Amino acid sequence: MGDLNEMYRNGVKWTREAGKRIRDSFQTKLTIHTKSNADDLVTNIDRETEQFFIQHIKASYPTHKIMGEEGFGDKLESLQGFVWIIDPIDGTMNFIHQQRNFAISVALYEDGVGKFGMVYDVVHDELYHAIRGNGAFLNDDPIPELPFVELNKAILGINATWVTDNKRIDSSILAPLVKSVRGTRSYGAATLEFVYVVTGRLDAYISMRLSPWDFAAGAILIEEVGGIVTTLDGNSLNFLGENTILVTNKSLHKTIVEDYVLK
Amino acid sequence: MGDLNEMYRNGVKWTREAGKRIRDSFQTKLTIHTKSNADDLVTNIDRETEQFFIQHIKASYPTHKIMGEEGFGDKLESLQGFVWIIDPIDGTMNFIHQQRNFAISVALYEDGVGKFGMVYDVVHDELYHAIRGNGAFLNDDPIPELPFVELNKAILGINATWVTDNKRIDSSILAPLVKSVRGTRSYGAATLEFVYVVTGRLDAYISMRLSPWDFAAGAILIEEVGGIVTTLDGNSLNFLGENTILVTNKSLHKTIVEDYVLK
Repeated sequence: MGDLNEMYRNGVKWTREAGKRIRDSFQTKLTIHTKSNADDLVTNIDRETEQFFIQHIKASYPTHKIMGEEGFGDKLESLQGFVWIIDPIDGTMNFIHQQRNFAISVALYEDGVGKFGMVYDVVHDELYHAIRGNGAFLNDDPIPELPFVELNKAILGINATWVTDNKRIDSSILAPLVKSVRGTRSYGAATLEFVYVVTGRLDAYISMRLSPWDFAAGAILIEEVGGIVTTLDGNSLNFLGENTILVTNKSLHKTIVEDYVLK
Repeated sequence: MGDLNEMYRNGVKWTREAGKRIRDSFQTKLTIHTKSNADDLVTNIDRETEQFFIQHIKASYPTHKIMGEEGFGDKLESLQGFVWIIDPIDGTMNFIHQQRNFAISVALYEDGVGKFGMVYDVVHDELYHAIRGNGAFLNDDPIPELPFVELNKAILGINATWVTDNKRIDSSILAPLVKSVRGTRSYGAATLEFVYVVTGRLDAYISMRLSPWDFAAGAILIEEVGGIVTTLDGNSLNFLGENTILVTNKSLHKTIVEDYVLK
């Protein structure tokens, strides 16, 4: 565990440092750019942040592999060895429009098994982090085990897209679930929606199209509080491609899969 | 204006003080209660906060009337004279589940005309406020006029409820709008969704069932940045009953009403 703890401490340090660079960039770059080229600007910050991680990881751990959203990492065909899975800015549309509600996500897997994960809500300076088996934390505070929740008292994270005509799912499948829960929310950043389930702010979150960097850290965090993540139909996640996602409090997983998705 | 400025300063003072009391209550009350009676707890804090406002307003301005969500104010049949319109906690479901993403909303109307309004994001200590005709502010910073936005680049605040089977609107009416915009979000607190449009974090927000305390402050704020608020079909709001709501950046109002709602 000695080495792993060091990797974890480095992961935390680099993540917080990358977040600080992004916050600083608001004061310098964003104020002098008009909204019309905000898309280019976020692309640059996204790329710079991924390269920042790659430089540090390669310098400290030259044998480790890197999978990142911006594509500057390695082209992986397996998860053998140590693999860092990174989303430098999750929620880029929020980043552009809101300058909030985006996050950095970093996870380390060894031979396909999650070792640690962290999701950093940059603007709120909230780091959600876990080493497998040691519980999840929000900054320095332990996150408690998720309590039992009934479906009609649950808050579901789901975007209106998935219950209107779309390319991924028949819009009538999830509509009854929207009616059954107490309320729905949508924040537009998968890694944050994962950690909202981890902290019980949401009781479940559904998305139809996530990549490994969107869920690699969250998948470790959710298991540390007794929650579950699978594909929408209850199967294991594929870490080398896109997935549907169902993250839930343990009390809701069976009913959502059996009574709504597969009904 | 002398008196009005004093009323405004008092409104700000009371709102910030009420927010501080709520934040303090998290540390004392919320930690010692189990989640099962969280509903009762929020009801108590909601009521205490409304009564806090009523006490202060009645002591300083005995002739003023008060309309509040919790119903401790006056029963109004008109908006004659000075009327304070108050939502002590907007977003109670978020308050219970998240301990964030709720707000205090306070507005003063004189003979039906908005004089000033404020929405206070308690946890983030963000006060959105405006005296009519003097621009809108987030804490000490002026909020700029809203820029032109095309519909296919817009972010729409809309809950999945309104595009699935529900009692208020045929779910097929707004579904094409969800497809046309760049993305949708839902935060579950109308007053915050109003100020997200005011600050350009959302470009439009739609709800099917809001009361005057949900929109009284936001309606003043949005006009100070060149935005528009009407019912969903483009008519004036009724401040003595429930309303459908469409708050938009000016560039989007006509197309949403004419090409989607009334089509």
